[in-house]
Amino acid sequence: MGFEYLTNVPLEQARNEYLQKLQGEGFGMQYETVPVQESFGRITARAVYARINAPHYAASAMDGVALRAKDSFGATETTPVMLRPDQFTVVDTGDPIPGSCDAVIMVEDIVQNDDGSITIHAAAAPWQHIRQIGEDICAGEMILTSFTEITPAAIGAMLAGGVMEVEVIRRPVVGIIPTGDEIIPPCANPRPGDILEFNSSIFSAMVKDWGGEPITYPIVPDHFDAIRDMVVRAAEECDMVILNAGSSAGRDDYSTAAIREIGEVLYHGIAIKPGKPAILGLRGSTPILGVPGYPVSGIIVIEELLQPLIDAWYGRESTKGSRTRARLTRQVVSGLKYQEYVRLRMGYVGNSLMASPLPRGSGIVSSFMKADGMLEVPQGTEGFASGEEVRVRLLKDRGQLKNTLVVIGSHDPLLDELTDLIHREDRRIFLSSAHVGSMGGIMAVRRGEAHAAGIHLLDTETGEYNLKYIRKYFPHGGVYLVRCVGRQQGLMLQHGNPLGIGRFSDIAGKGVRYVNRQKGSGTRILADYLCQKEGVDPGQVYGYEREEVTHNSVAVQIASGSADAGMGIYSAAKLYGLDFLPVCVEEYDLLIPETVWNTGLIKQLIRTLKSEAFRARIEAMGGYTLDRPGEIIDVF
Amino acid sequence: MGFEYLTNVPLEQARNEYLQKLQGEGFGMQYETVPVQESFGRITARAVYARINAPHYAASAMDGVALRAKDSFGATETTPVMLRPDQFTVVDTGDPIPGSCDAVIMVEDIVQNDDGSITIHAAAAPWQHIRQIGEDICAGEMILTSFTEITPAAIGAMLAGGVMEVEVIRRPVVGIIPTGDEIIPPCANPRPGDILEFNSSIFSAMVKDWGGEPITYPIVPDHFDAIRDMVVRAAEECDMVILNAGSSAGRDDYSTAAIREIGEVLYHGIAIKPGKPAILGLRGSTPILGVPGYPVSGIIVIEELLQPLIDAWYGRESTKGSRTRARLTRQVVSGLKYQEYVRLRMGYVGNSLMASPLPRGSGIVSSFMKADGMLEVPQGTEGFASGEEVRVRLLKDRGQLKNTLVVIGSHDPLLDELTDLIHREDRRIFLSSAHVGSMGGIMAVRRGEAHAAGIHLLDTETGEYNLKYIRKYFPHGGVYLVRCVGRQQGLMLQHGNPLGIGRFSDIAGKGVRYVNRQKGSGTRILADYLCQKEGVDPGQVYGYEREEVTHNSVAVQIASGSADAGMGIYSAAKLYGLDFLPVCVEEYDLLIPETVWNTGLIKQLIRTLKSEAFRARIEAMGGYTLDRPGEIIDVF
Repeated sequence: MGFEYLTNVPLEQARNEYLQKLQGEGFGMQYETVPVQESFGRITARAVYARINAPHYAASAMDGVALRAKDSFGATETTPVMLRPDQFTVVDTGDPIPGSCDAVIMVEDIVQNDDGSITIHAAAAPWQHIRQIGEDICAGEMILTSFTEITPAAIGAMLAGGVMEVEVIRRPVVGIIPTGDEIIPPCANPRPGDILEFNSSIFSAMVKDWGGEPITYPIVPDHFDAIRDMVVRAAEECDMVILNAGSSAGRDDYSTAAIREIGEVLYHGIAIKPGKPAILGLRGSTPILGVPGYPVSGIIVIEELLQPLIDAWYGRESTKGSRTRARLTRQVVSGLKYQEYVRLRMGYVGNSLMASPLPRGSGIVSSFMKADGMLEVPQGTEGFASGEEVRVRLLKDRGQLKNTLVVIGSHDPLLDELTDLIHREDRRIFLSSAHVGSMGGIMAVRRGEAHAAGIHLLDTETGEYNLKYIRKYFPHGGVYLVRCVGRQQGLMLQHGNPLGIGRFSDIAGKGVRYVNRQKGSGTRILADYLCQKEGVDPGQVYGYEREEVTHNSVAVQIASGSADAGMGIYSAAKLYGLDFLPVCVEEYDLLIPETVWNTGLIKQLIRTLKSEAFRARIEAMGGYTLDRPGEIIDVF
Repeated sequence: MGFEYLTNVPLEQARNEYLQKLQGEGFGMQYETVPVQESFGRITARAVYARINAPHYAASAMDGVALRAKDSFGATETTPVMLRPDQFTVVDTGDPIPGSCDAVIMVEDIVQNDDGSITIHAAAAPWQHIRQIGEDICAGEMILTSFTEITPAAIGAMLAGGVMEVEVIRRPVVGIIPTGDEIIPPCANPRPGDILEFNSSIFSAMVKDWGGEPITYPIVPDHFDAIRDMVVRAAEECDMVILNAGSSAGRDDYSTAAIREIGEVLYHGIAIKPGKPAILGLRGSTPILGVPGYPVSGIIVIEELLQPLIDAWYGRESTKGSRTRARLTRQVVSGLKYQEYVRLRMGYVGNSLMASPLPRGSGIVSSFMKADGMLEVPQGTEGFASGEEVRVRLLKDRGQLKNTLVVIGSHDPLLDELTDLIHREDRRIFLSSAHVGSMGGIMAVRRGEAHAAGIHLLDTETGEYNLKYIRKYFPHGGVYLVRCVGRQQGLMLQHGNPLGIGRFSDIAGKGVRYVNRQKGSGTRILADYLCQKEGVDPGQVYGYEREEVTHNSVAVQIASGSADAGMGIYSAAKLYGLDFLPVCVEEYDLLIPETVWNTGLIKQLIRTLKSEAFRARIEAMGGYTLDRPGEIIDVF
């Protein structure tokens, strides 16, 4: 194959040229006829006209008798009129009016006589109490305009108008081809080296969401002929094709060559990050989009290049979330060479919309799931400073963001449980947490970027937690410190403790591989303090510079055998079946600015902290002590 | 059966008592487990935790070699280090890292030697270029909280975390039972008396829209046992049941009795209009809702009583469109006894949101389709005055309303064609027309309630159209008059003209049944003028007081045989195959206020008037002349 250099064409240019080229080949909207009963939510292809009148016959609007209005003329209370049985017809609501009649008198206004005749005491106006033919819809009238979404009432109107089938825009069929030798269908027990093929499930749902019809083809191994043949088949069966993985210029890349052989490649390489190695290919009027294997890259390529094709198919404006301004809580550094996509957690604190960048790794599908917004750093820009106001694309609605508790600070799995409990108790309230360590939490509260911060900062002189730090960083007060939990910190060790680690200083022992937390986290500060106290030189601890950002990820490294020891909380050790050497019980509290104290969000947070449900979940996790959670600690 | 008096309980009270009673019986959310791949859009029943780490093995993040970092320590440009083949493993991106290795060096940074060894010129930091186990998701971590909508990325995260199935809120199954002897499935050629059963299609789509799963049962005739047995079956198979029609207290009403026999009726009769005869029944914890047969009544009962049940099932806040304030263009009169629902056409004219009441007949399904908003006139209120600001519920989004051309005035079918053409040319633009006659249009423009009005007002002294009226009602100018079409007015007559009508004055002839247009319409003014001119006494014309509001509905009455003659335009006569006696060609122009003249909406309207597509459609309709449509007429 040989190495192929990628182009670095700007996204906008590539997208426009791609669409123009495809439209030149005949790409675009197609139609199909569907039964009206199955047309809910579809888009009309052309105007729909009624075939029959609705109602289609003159119908009685009341229970009563139908008659010729003329025959009733002159009837009053004092000069009643009698009608012979052949002069009227008994009708119920909805019954057809006999051809000779042109009025209905309600049953309440009639006196029935023994001889079958009736007496009336008021004249009937012609056409009273009659639903006229076409009162609702006249035959030949336009019921629906072109390119209109079919609502429940529109279904009723079409059926009432005698329209049984309707021509709608056909949903474009999008074929998804997963490729790769190591790729296997998702399962719960993969072996090392197996790569779970979940991209096609993500892409399918996206395609459905945009009004397309996804088809996922079987996984194709990394063989040129197999890939080429599958692309040909998909291009024949579908309106658009996604060829997943193999689009980087690496060893096993057959995608570009395959598309070239059976069609054409407009560009291979777009100036976006992640997503650069996208392939913009086509066969006739069928787009064949080569999409990188990493899920985040793939999602971005699909959003930026496939969604516009589906929008063009439907002939509609692109609808990619509304844009707004938000304040960055951390700096975002970007290369000049690409347009870069940064996913954001967002929330309103007071009246300010805050945006915290999420991890950017292109394999990190969970960051996409958590994203409330997207920051696009334009090509040629170096990024943005912390605190800067930036323009972002919202992925959630504003109402939801206004009801989101923003918690920034130290990580603890109890935050997830809190998130779940709060949302279960009040479906309108959400909690969004970002893990930047205790010091990061204090700074976020100081800058007004968070509703709350989880902190556990040891004063090494007094052994007290949190108080000294708060007095230092909030000399003028303005914050509350709220009790959360006491938690057991210690060394997490391999199951059975094979290296016989018996005290903290053993982490410097020969053959011990340590895994650390990131700087600024309370747990790191604790580890640094213990090193100093026990006379351990961090430079002598193998792996002391290896940083993970949560208790769980430290535990996972030990559980998987790539490290022997790490500082963390008991609940994480328990979750992964690790041995645990207790070191201390620390106070994990919540720091809350006064400015948000009286909001409904904080009130719900405090209620949940005090609830039995919270106690039950925390006790099930193990390693925590609960002493009046939700109460205010006297700081100042 | 006997006549049953209906209760008149306020809606809010009935709804709350109904829900409480049902919940007391056990009504509420149920769960089901679905494959994650099929879970898009579903709502989680409880928190979802990862089963495995993602990635589940330490993987190379680059193409290169894996090694022990220690073996590379000391390597620099000047002091390269050589590694034997047993000291490294060649790896591609995604390959697992051998257990003994803890770093990767990129292929670009390696020199390959002939003996199979490699030389490196920089030390590797431990864990560089390695995707750590659990970098994305750690086993045991919470992936999704309870009661959360499953997005495409969430599907990816669950599959990556080894979760193959997810427990979600089961969609409630809603059984729909149509009843009635005259009811037949929708068809294009019903006989008089046949009532097309399209309610179940409307209700099905509504139920789907709210997240339910509709089942429509076969039509049940008006027999007590048959209805009762079907209700029992549906109550066993479904979570909620809609029993359609037969819920008024009329002759063939078995619904209430049937529900009473197999369950319980909480209320029969709610203080809403339309929709009063609703039945709030239940069997155990299964609601059985009796819904009136008229589509509009049925839709309102379903919206007010079924949707809250589905919301309660999902445990979510009711989401019934946002509310806003709008100005009424016509008065709305309401009875004190009921809460009344009035559907509205809406649009922004300048910065004011205007609301025009649509026809209120409960059989008028087309008014529901056209509705942009809903006005709820509270029980105990007599209605609202024209021009009054009222609180309305929006059924369309505000962006669409801001892009809607509001045309109020004389009816002509060409307005529908114009609506279609404009939306085809620019998908963002909509046109909404209300038919209130030429004089109504002039008044609407004067009050700033419309972007344009279609008018054709004859000055009986000069034979000129429109000019005198505009000078009278806009003495200070401020409006443009724009050419639209010349149109042929005349008498529409039965096919073959069986009564031999030869001139206008024949409408007063013996046995001739006339059908008129409403007062204030240009066509009515023309007819009144012709009566005066030809010496016809309107009191002598049978049916002169019978009013229809469009040309088409006049034509329909003649075509269906219930009238012999009516004044109208040629295109309507042609559409229904009627004979036509030409009377005059009139000018149908568009009146547009200066204040909106420079908007994009009006510019598109003018462009469309001048387009070839407009000409083609108008010519196909017949009876029109086109003389520079879209040009401004000199008025002042």
